[in-house]
Amino acid sequence: MKAPKVIFFDVNESLLDLGNMKKSIATILEGKEELLPLWFTTMLQYSSVTTLSQQYTNFDEIGAAALQMVAANNNVSLSSEKAKEAMKSFSSLPPHREVVEALNTLRSAGYKMVALSNSSSDGLATQLKNAGLTDLFDEIISVEQVGKFKPDSSVYLWASKKMDAQPEDCMMIAAHGWDVAGAMWAGWQAAFIARPGQQLYTLAPKPQINEPNLLLIAEKLVGLK
Amino acid sequence: MKAPKVIFFDVNESLLDLGNMKKSIATILEGKEELLPLWFTTMLQYSSVTTLSQQYTNFDEIGAAALQMVAANNNVSLSSEKAKEAMKSFSSLPPHREVVEALNTLRSAGYKMVALSNSSSDGLATQLKNAGLTDLFDEIISVEQVGKFKPDSSVYLWASKKMDAQPEDCMMIAAHGWDVAGAMWAGWQAAFIARPGQQLYTLAPKPQINEPNLLLIAEKLVGLK
Repeated sequence: MKAPKVIFFDVNESLLDLGNMKKSIATILEGKEELLPLWFTTMLQYSSVTTLSQQYTNFDEIGAAALQMVAANNNVSLSSEKAKEAMKSFSSLPPHREVVEALNTLRSAGYKMVALSNSSSDGLATQLKNAGLTDLFDEIISVEQVGKFKPDSSVYLWASKKMDAQPEDCMMIAAHGWDVAGAMWAGWQAAFIARPGQQLYTLAPKPQINEPNLLLIAEKLVGLK
Repeated sequence: MKAPKVIFFDVNESLLDLGNMKKSIATILEGKEELLPLWFTTMLQYSSVTTLSQQYTNFDEIGAAALQMVAANNNVSLSSEKAKEAMKSFSSLPPHREVVEALNTLRSAGYKMVALSNSSSDGLATQLKNAGLTDLFDEIISVEQVGKFKPDSSVYLWASKKMDAQPEDCMMIAAHGWDVAGAMWAGWQAAFIARPGQQLYTLAPKPQINEPNLLLIAEKLVGLK
């Protein structure tokens, strides 16, 4: 394992804490908190469906449509307007508690740092601003620029080219098994943030780093410099 | 709306009843039946992840890996062997009760009929044989032949070429919003079987036919001949 030249960070759930958002979604789903992982997985499934079908709609709209599908399957009445309204809490999520220190640690060690998210361009800018993280990145990239969602291989290849780096010099850091898998299958290194409720995908290659929080990952990466 | 030249049928949940399988999966998940839709959605998500990443693993293996992920996130201990064992019930599902009559009705009307499934080639052949449906199709096609999962656009285009038909002369019949969406985005017509627990994807074009069971769909199609 060698030090990557560019580190890419997933944002939702990886850097930002979806806890509050989940509470507001649970309220909309009439308190059925057990439906939250189903909603989030349905949103991810349909973002992949969109890319496989050569289409693009932004992540918030897909999230709202997924919320309506899950609601309808569970006899919860939910208008399109109310579903869209619920997605607004995506824009004001706090960072997980170790994130600011971890990002500063990596930055001080001289790493080039990029946010790479499935959120829309505007949405991502707002999210990072509200979380106070904007200045910690060299570059902030939404998949909206390429019109495909992660984990499409071409997103990672496009992002590495954009940063003028070879795939093997890039590392994806994410709390999602599918993001780690997609990045590694595209030839990148990867680190998995094993947050509660998140699992690696066992049919994909194992990431170079696997730790329960970002600070522990940052310490390993600083050790490579 | 004009009569399609070739009708393609999705198999799992669309023709075959997953009820019994869900019971055996629920037993493995320690009776947590509310996790079943999450497992199925995770399996679908990771089949899309696999195709987006230019990889191929068969559907049973993806289903077993998804089952382990869902189990781990819910503090259920599940070995890889036990997960794979659970997937075996996929091969002996009964047809939904109106399916045999509906398929015979369409066949008698002179429609060319094709099964098009994300199941593996061997798995699909076994499923249709055990359900007594094999002889009702002109062709049985697994996505394994093309190494990509539905709803990748190229699967529909490849299947229509294989049947020597233009995309607009093909119709997908499925109980899944993502399959209907993918087919329509690939230029096919589509019919949605609105089975309990299934929803159309609201951000995709509306299918030409939307009925709660296959017999009602068959009657509409016979009317076009």
